[in-house]
Amino acid sequence: MTGLNIFGVPGLPEIEKGADLPGLIVEAAAKTEPLASGDVVVITSKIVSKAEGRTVELADVEASEFARRYAEQWDKEPAVIELVLREARRVVRQVGPVLITETHHGFVCANSGVDQSSSGAHGRAVLLPVDPDESARRFRGRFRELGLDVAVIISDTFGRPWREAQTDIAIGIAGMNPVLSYIGQVDPHGHEFRVQAIAVADELAAAAELVKGNVSRIPVAVVRGHQWETDNEATMRSIIRDSANDIFR
Amino acid sequence: MTGLNIFGVPGLPEIEKGADLPGLIVEAAAKTEPLASGDVVVITSKIVSKAEGRTVELADVEASEFARRYAEQWDKEPAVIELVLREARRVVRQVGPVLITETHHGFVCANSGVDQSSSGAHGRAVLLPVDPDESARRFRGRFRELGLDVAVIISDTFGRPWREAQTDIAIGIAGMNPVLSYIGQVDPHGHEFRVQAIAVADELAAAAELVKGNVSRIPVAVVRGHQWETDNEATMRSIIRDSANDIFR
Repeated sequence: MTGLNIFGVPGLPEIEKGADLPGLIVEAAAKTEPLASGDVVVITSKIVSKAEGRTVELADVEASEFARRYAEQWDKEPAVIELVLREARRVVRQVGPVLITETHHGFVCANSGVDQSSSGAHGRAVLLPVDPDESARRFRGRFRELGLDVAVIISDTFGRPWREAQTDIAIGIAGMNPVLSYIGQVDPHGHEFRVQAIAVADELAAAAELVKGNVSRIPVAVVRGHQWETDNEATMRSIIRDSANDIFR
Repeated sequence: MTGLNIFGVPGLPEIEKGADLPGLIVEAAAKTEPLASGDVVVITSKIVSKAEGRTVELADVEASEFARRYAEQWDKEPAVIELVLREARRVVRQVGPVLITETHHGFVCANSGVDQSSSGAHGRAVLLPVDPDESARRFRGRFRELGLDVAVIISDTFGRPWREAQTDIAIGIAGMNPVLSYIGQVDPHGHEFRVQAIAVADELAAAAELVKGNVSRIPVAVVRGHQWETDNEATMRSIIRDSANDIFR
């Protein structure tokens, strides 16, 4: 059968700071379906953050007056609001309890991606990786050391305007371009395609979520059969719309 | 191997008005990988529109003064702008040549989803199906007549704020709920999940795009191995955010 095969990598241990994620993923996959060169490995940002020590004890965070007042008004944890603001370079919308920010990476999302759940204990929060592209590049290099030429995507679960519920999208990439461009190509009737570029990295992240799930504790999935061209310069920057061209920011 | 298998259905003929899409899909799939009960069949809206006669000769469209002036200002076809406005219940943003509308279905997208490309000839446009949920329900019923219990998703390619490039999303569904809810569930540490609902229909549409492609003329893909519960009342309405709750509209 041609097409794509997408499967989760079960059996990873709880991830601690300093963990060798590619090593652990290769080891876990070997017990079910071993990784192969050409695979796209999609890793949930949460375990990347944990491996990189992006976990914060809320008791250590001193909240600003703005954060304290806002937290009080909407029954939130002041330290969490403080972290959300520190992780933001701009507040895009603040409407009632909803706080949509632009992170230092340029991603627009709720609460700067700060996550209080599944953080290993009460009173901790997990922040997004500092540079998910750099994390992905490092992982890709490590997979190569282990004999595997794979593309790496780091994913997170984001909401979107206009549509309820969330989907997984890519926040870091290595090895392949996140966008497939059709610009300049024409259909058999000579029309330019209405669609000019597809965010394949986001589609791969979404596809991977279908097998990882958000509650099943399978934070890594493999997409096998996707044809990608090696691009060692690839980053997610080409998918982040410049705010000057963004009519919804 | 567990997980998902996703494959395109090649070999469909050019779709004409009145075509029996499920019949044609079953027939085409039989030559490569036959459909099976339990599959999710993802159909590009374009061929649904064609089968339903949602193709318009631009020469037959009388443009309003507003449409004519706007078309002239931005070097667009007046009849196309007229159709975009007729397909809209509201203009969400009109900035330079970019026209973001809310369609009669409630979808927010560029140009009300009106498509001038690949329409079979110059001087025609293809509109979105009138009621993609109803189309999906009809197709699901027809698949059942053919002995197949499949879920049906009708997909289209939409842009999104903040991120460049487009992804496929679901605009019609039958047989399964488009949203997987985690509300009320807690992680092993007693925290509610940060993610409360996943738009699985959109993730399935995105995954299907990876094998359909927008230029490869494979308008149908099958997702096999996705566990879905039968829901014969399902529609996309649960994914359309009420504009009263939408801080970006």
